[in-house]
Amino acid sequence: MFESLSPALDKLTERLHRLPGIGRKTAQRLALFILRQDEEQVHALADAILRVKKDIHFCRQCFNITEQELCRICLDTRRDRKTICVVEDIVDIFAIEKSNEYRGLYHVLGGVISPLSGVSPNDLKIAELVSRVEQNGIEEILLAINPSTEGEATMIYLSKLIKPSGIKVTRIASGIPIGSHLEYIDDATIGRAIVSRREL
Amino acid sequence: MFESLSPALDKLTERLHRLPGIGRKTAQRLALFILRQDEEQVHALADAILRVKKDIHFCRQCFNITEQELCRICLDTRRDRKTICVVEDIVDIFAIEKSNEYRGLYHVLGGVISPLSGVSPNDLKIAELVSRVEQNGIEEILLAINPSTEGEATMIYLSKLIKPSGIKVTRIASGIPIGSHLEYIDDATIGRAIVSRREL
Repeated sequence: MFESLSPALDKLTERLHRLPGIGRKTAQRLALFILRQDEEQVHALADAILRVKKDIHFCRQCFNITEQELCRICLDTRRDRKTICVVEDIVDIFAIEKSNEYRGLYHVLGGVISPLSGVSPNDLKIAELVSRVEQNGIEEILLAINPSTEGEATMIYLSKLIKPSGIKVTRIASGIPIGSHLEYIDDATIGRAIVSRREL
Repeated sequence: MFESLSPALDKLTERLHRLPGIGRKTAQRLALFILRQDEEQVHALADAILRVKKDIHFCRQCFNITEQELCRICLDTRRDRKTICVVEDIVDIFAIEKSNEYRGLYHVLGGVISPLSGVSPNDLKIAELVSRVEQNGIEEILLAINPSTEGEATMIYLSKLIKPSGIKVTRIASGIPIGSHLEYIDDATIGRAIVSRREL
């Protein structure tokens, strides 16, 4: 790289480059765009960044994000309070809510059990899940964890932990995505879709 | 979109979505990433954004960016002060500097003449270019303006303006990019490359 034109621009480029999916060239383009925006726009962006950190924290009950003590979903009395959907991450709540097929509560684990990455059950919100299951009149735990190797292991772990208390434990179906073609789908998914076939 | 989980997160998503090339989904992903970074990282990013606006302004001579009065290129005594390369935008300086083929000075026009977009010669740094040409011992003006219709028109305009003062006016070559294949190149570029052919 040639001698820098501005340390401030380099610094911003470097900071933007740390964001996921932002390469060095894109970071530079974004930095130059920000430089050319007017004062007000730039302050609004910086303020929005600081605000997410300042205003947002985790729901005391389900570890979803919220700006209050409990999140909007936990506070929503129209939702089914007998079902808890267990997810790895907040983004999964976004994805499930958009499907409009689930009306129960959530519980964000904060990851999956992964001995290789040093993530043990104690690093996740598993104790908190168990205590929610014990306290309230929960009837079903729906595991909506990504079907990776670690995800599968985590679902088995949770199932063994919760089933003895007599609560129904389910998992979302694996199979062929709607609108896709069999020829483009990996073997493991096709195999799972065949094993999980249902009668019409 | 389902009912929002956090106004602060929505606001940041919306702000990031305004950046060029950042779609709504990417903006949301970046916002969640920022939310999960620690306090120090988030402040560093916000600070870097505010700093580019606060510390950077335009070089008094060539309108490149700088944190002083003159930019590093204008201040660099090792550079050839008899040649000025005229570009549309600061990003073009970055691109040319990286090629390591140019050692003269620059002049950033801030755009091209475009009657349809309401950009007249007075909206660009053309008067400032003419005054630089008149004052200093300039021998060559190299036009490195993008070869769009407006770019071509701007190069003709500048050439007519500067040539009468006896200074050499050149333009960077148009032709087939290094490493590309003729079959993928548009007709206009091939036509230009043939017209501009040189003897071996």
